[in-house]
Amino acid sequence: MEFRFDEALPVLRQTPRALRAWLQGLPVSWTTATEGPGTWSPYDVVGHLIHGERADWIPRVEHLLAHGETVPFPPFDREAMFTGSAGQTLDQLLDRFSALRNTSLARLDALGLTDADLARTGRHPEFGIVTLGQHLATWVVHDMSHVAQVARVMATQYAEAVGPWRAYLSVLGRS
Amino acid sequence: MEFRFDEALPVLRQTPRALRAWLQGLPVSWTTATEGPGTWSPYDVVGHLIHGERADWIPRVEHLLAHGETVPFPPFDREAMFTGSAGQTLDQLLDRFSALRNTSLARLDALGLTDADLARTGRHPEFGIVTLGQHLATWVVHDMSHVAQVARVMATQYAEAVGPWRAYLSVLGRS
Repeated sequence: MEFRFDEALPVLRQTPRALRAWLQGLPVSWTTATEGPGTWSPYDVVGHLIHGERADWIPRVEHLLAHGETVPFPPFDREAMFTGSAGQTLDQLLDRFSALRNTSLARLDALGLTDADLARTGRHPEFGIVTLGQHLATWVVHDMSHVAQVARVMATQYAEAVGPWRAYLSVLGRS
Repeated sequence: MEFRFDEALPVLRQTPRALRAWLQGLPVSWTTATEGPGTWSPYDVVGHLIHGERADWIPRVEHLLAHGETVPFPPFDREAMFTGSAGQTLDQLLDRFSALRNTSLARLDALGLTDADLARTGRHPEFGIVTLGQHLATWVVHDMSHVAQVARVMATQYAEAVGPWRAYLSVLGRS
């Protein structure tokens, strides 16, 4: 599929409500579980998504529209949530993510972009020229990648508990 | 983690509402998308989860309690949804899954199982002796594996659209 606003926006709109319906009220043994040292819990993932709303998706859209290829995007700190989420409950993070995503989509709407704008170019600090359409498609895929990550992290907690079924559950990888 | 009823039941309870919050109302270009011939769409996955409620999870619990190791579980048709979902909208499938999951959890509750029962054994048609606890842990992991699958299927639709970001998005695999 090519990126299209009418197809992508509903996905972006529904990610926060999906995460809330899924994670709210679960025992913390799930929401703070990781895949091992240096890996992220569902709680960490929601914090990371919050930081994306603040520092990545719409800020980079506006940066691209303002600067084109002349000024690279500022780097994005993908581990900012380890300090940014401090002291907050998962419920608070889920509410924050939902509010920020709504604001992001309202800002995007206010820009009045058309399909022709999707070919506009900016400069990524690592891999150079990118289009607005590529950046927006990445926003969608980034959401999905972290939904998949949360599911995998939770599944992994039962990697031993499933016994011989492990060989049939590709989400667990192979022991 | 070891399987525990108090930890697992909330996860099982929330999967249907998470899928509804995520998928309801999305353009069909997402919900019927696959990863290629012979692979499943989000619509197919929900149908498969419905069939699991009907033919796998609680039926096998009851089979194990009734027969122990003497009679193997009946085989499970993992592609039954290709006929079972015929003529139904995704909304109808999401409602059906939710209702059947609620019924499953009510049946499980009515069995009054304790932690001691988790060591009770049955016979899987392919890999032999399994415990009730392993079967129930698999139910949870199976949910998570299909949530991850839906996210991956959706992400894959934009595998080309993300341009150079592809190399950073492990959910897309490697081209």
